[in-house]
Amino acid sequence: MKSAKKDLLGIEELSTDEIGFILDTADSMKEISLRDIKKVPTLRGKTVVHFFHEPSTRTKTSFEIAAKRLSADAVSISASTSSIVKGETLIDTARNLEAMNPDVVVIRHQASGSAQMIANRIRASVINAGDGMHAHPTQALLDMMTVREKKKTLSGLKIVIAGDIAHSRVARSNIIGFTRMGSDVVVAGPPTMIPMDIESVGATVTYSIEDAARKADVIMILRIQKERMDDFLFPSNREYASFFGLTHKAVSKARKNVVIMHPGPINRGVEIPPEIADGSRSVILDQVENGVAVRMAVLYLLIGGSRHASDN
Amino acid sequence: MKSAKKDLLGIEELSTDEIGFILDTADSMKEISLRDIKKVPTLRGKTVVHFFHEPSTRTKTSFEIAAKRLSADAVSISASTSSIVKGETLIDTARNLEAMNPDVVVIRHQASGSAQMIANRIRASVINAGDGMHAHPTQALLDMMTVREKKKTLSGLKIVIAGDIAHSRVARSNIIGFTRMGSDVVVAGPPTMIPMDIESVGATVTYSIEDAARKADVIMILRIQKERMDDFLFPSNREYASFFGLTHKAVSKARKNVVIMHPGPINRGVEIPPEIADGSRSVILDQVENGVAVRMAVLYLLIGGSRHASDN
Amino acid sequence: MKSAKKDLLGIEELSTDEIGFILDTADSMKEISLRDIKKVPTLRGKTVVHFFHEPSTRTKTSFEIAAKRLSADAVSISASTSSIVKGETLIDTARNLEAMNPDVVVIRHQASGSAQMIANRIRASVINAGDGMHAHPTQALLDMMTVREKKKTLSGLKIVIAGDIAHSRVARSNIIGFTRMGSDVVVAGPPTMIPMDIESVGATVTYSIEDAARKADVIMILRIQKERMDDFLFPSNREYASFFGLTHKAVSKARKNVVIMHPGPINRGVEIPPEIADGSRSVILDQVENGVAVRMAVLYLLIGGSRHASDN
Repeated sequence: MKSAKKDLLGIEELSTDEIGFILDTADSMKEISLRDIKKVPTLRGKTVVHFFHEPSTRTKTSFEIAAKRLSADAVSISASTSSIVKGETLIDTARNLEAMNPDVVVIRHQASGSAQMIANRIRASVINAGDGMHAHPTQALLDMMTVREKKKTLSGLKIVIAGDIAHSRVARSNIIGFTRMGSDVVVAGPPTMIPMDIESVGATVTYSIEDAARKADVIMILRIQKERMDDFLFPSNREYASFFGLTHKAVSKARKNVVIMHPGPINRGVEIPPEIADGSRSVILDQVENGVAVRMAVLYLLIGGSRHASDN
Repeated sequence: MKSAKKDLLGIEELSTDEIGFILDTADSMKEISLRDIKKVPTLRGKTVVHFFHEPSTRTKTSFEIAAKRLSADAVSISASTSSIVKGETLIDTARNLEAMNPDVVVIRHQASGSAQMIANRIRASVINAGDGMHAHPTQALLDMMTVREKKKTLSGLKIVIAGDIAHSRVARSNIIGFTRMGSDVVVAGPPTMIPMDIESVGATVTYSIEDAARKADVIMILRIQKERMDDFLFPSNREYASFFGLTHKAVSKARKNVVIMHPGPINRGVEIPPEIADGSRSVILDQVENGVAVRMAVLYLLIGGSRHASDN
Repeated sequence: MKSAKKDLLGIEELSTDEIGFILDTADSMKEISLRDIKKVPTLRGKTVVHFFHEPSTRTKTSFEIAAKRLSADAVSISASTSSIVKGETLIDTARNLEAMNPDVVVIRHQASGSAQMIANRIRASVINAGDGMHAHPTQALLDMMTVREKKKTLSGLKIVIAGDIAHSRVARSNIIGFTRMGSDVVVAGPPTMIPMDIESVGATVTYSIEDAARKADVIMILRIQKERMDDFLFPSNREYASFFGLTHKAVSKARKNVVIMHPGPINRGVEIPPEIADGSRSVILDQVENGVAVRMAVLYLLIGGSRHASDN
């Protein structure tokens, strides 16, 4: 990756070997965050621009901390303070940022394809931190890192992803990533929330989370987005939870040492009961911790090596 | 403190010796900000997260400058850009931040007790930068530092705190702090703004600022919060000023070298006349300057020593 | 400049030699941003406060990147998170910032004269990053740098500035700057957008951009501010574009190697056709790149030398 790729836009562009190499690198990076002095000079003098068009605590903070622990200079732009409010197009904003000679632009944007569009037009590396319903590759990488940490392998595992699959960039990136690494992915959710062509990317479809959970090694429950609940006419949180939330019964059908995941932020008592979120099988906070490590690895692999110096 | 305490949540948890040690440390830190190169490597590789739920110029900027002058990595999260807007609970947000391995979380929040609640749940040090009407310990420390600087001691001084005592975390922390250090604290304000049990914490109560000011060494006038004035049915700023603001007559009854303080931001002509705020007895800007020094001291004492490496 | 001036408030305060020296310094600074390690230790331990009261991508980001590439500690305050919302006056906010011992305060504010007002009251250096309709000196410096880069000189060039001259701080600072450096400045725009006394500062006035463009070396087209279009009763963008936007016909009348400039953000198809903005004569992105270099130069010249250590 270090000598080959300019950007990280989606999991589909990564080979099995490349994913494995990123996860190995992230394992080493994780150790840095556990030191007393959590900082290495690796990216000193590099400029990372965080360009976030949607509210985000964990992803934005995770990237900022990752950049700073590698000694990069981090600059943040949010939509509300940017020239976007003056009517500038996204491409013009990106080209203007580019002119300031950043090494990486990390972008989150509500439009699917926005990260690709920008990556095509600027020389700097682009990391997709979530574009519409399309992709969120660092989330998939941190999820794979977390599962690999607990299960020692990704190959042959049964991974259940449950919830609003159709509108979730997290689901889409994870289905592609886990499938590529040899896992069997089963998606579960109400029919309106399962996209028509999902089996073509290698996932099996069920409409019952309890059926899906049978002998699962991992259950990843997605966040229900409240603003979308209105569209689907759920009369209440309680109804959603009882039909499509994670239940104790579902967990009981999984393997004994099943790993429970959630990309956060969680709606306690809606898609996940608090005692499961906080229980011993939950790795939700490991996911967050590994997020910093994965972002350090991606930043390092994209701009820390010799590619930039020679090719760019 | 360095080897004993994880958090700074309130003044009441500090002994006389501990307060004295923080103020001594702050005196040394102040010197750094007067150098040509205002930076020491003390907290290099430490991560400080500033998590502010209320608007703030001076406290947030003061903490950020303090962290940077000690070479820490500073990351900021404000409520409007955080997952709070997605409905996540405060505790979940805090636990997620924790998972990114920060050394300190500095929190300001409108709910009394929020800092304590978070400190109980995360391993990182927590500094309370103001929680509801409860406490604002670094403000009290910078106020004590400023008075000690001018008066050489805190013992035996008459400290008047005037204004809306009942709703002020600044008043509460200062009453506890100055009393503990041997000062005599007199509070003054309209009866509706004096809490019932205030004498139990060691303060004397008056309802006239001019009576209170007699032979005072220090007069600290609190900010009147305009949004609260409506609740108390003051017909105008002018009326508030004439009854409960700081007057020249009050100042004239104090000791000749009385020190005039205000935690800021000031409402000129409401609780304090401009010529007093800008006069030679005013130490309002010294308070701001000492704020940076006190925050450097607290950051250093909480995470700069060996406690973290060994106990955490 | 290094040993003489405290602030950069407007171009009018700079001599021909001083402008030349800033541009020479900016040329050297530009090279730093092209290195693999884009960082020098020049301003290590200096504190730069960015105090922005208006939305801004490029100027704020440009200053932040400039400060970080010089290793200064950069702190940002925006109006929405500042004590301004609590009713504090601008001067009080500035004096409070001052008390935290910054080396530079970079200010953008909607009130003309605000930067000067603050500079008069604080010891720290003040850089005006745009005050109302008054001045935007770093924009004029980056524009002069860009033209000098392309034309090798500023002397004897014909510079056309077109658009809403009356309300543009960019126009005002550029007219003064280019005139001082020996260029001939011609302004073009509808009569309601040309100030009465503009000829007194050395500019020639026309009401037709095509007349103005004849034999021009540089055409700088200003941004039309949509909120102002209502005031002037333009029925549509299209009408504005056809009467007062930059046209191919205007460009054809200029010198063959005319340089096309725009301070950004651009309104594509309103004041500038996309094919001109993106064409080979456009230096719009050079302007952005040079903006970082000019700000590095100004920061360095104001606080990097020995003036602060000895005089302040």
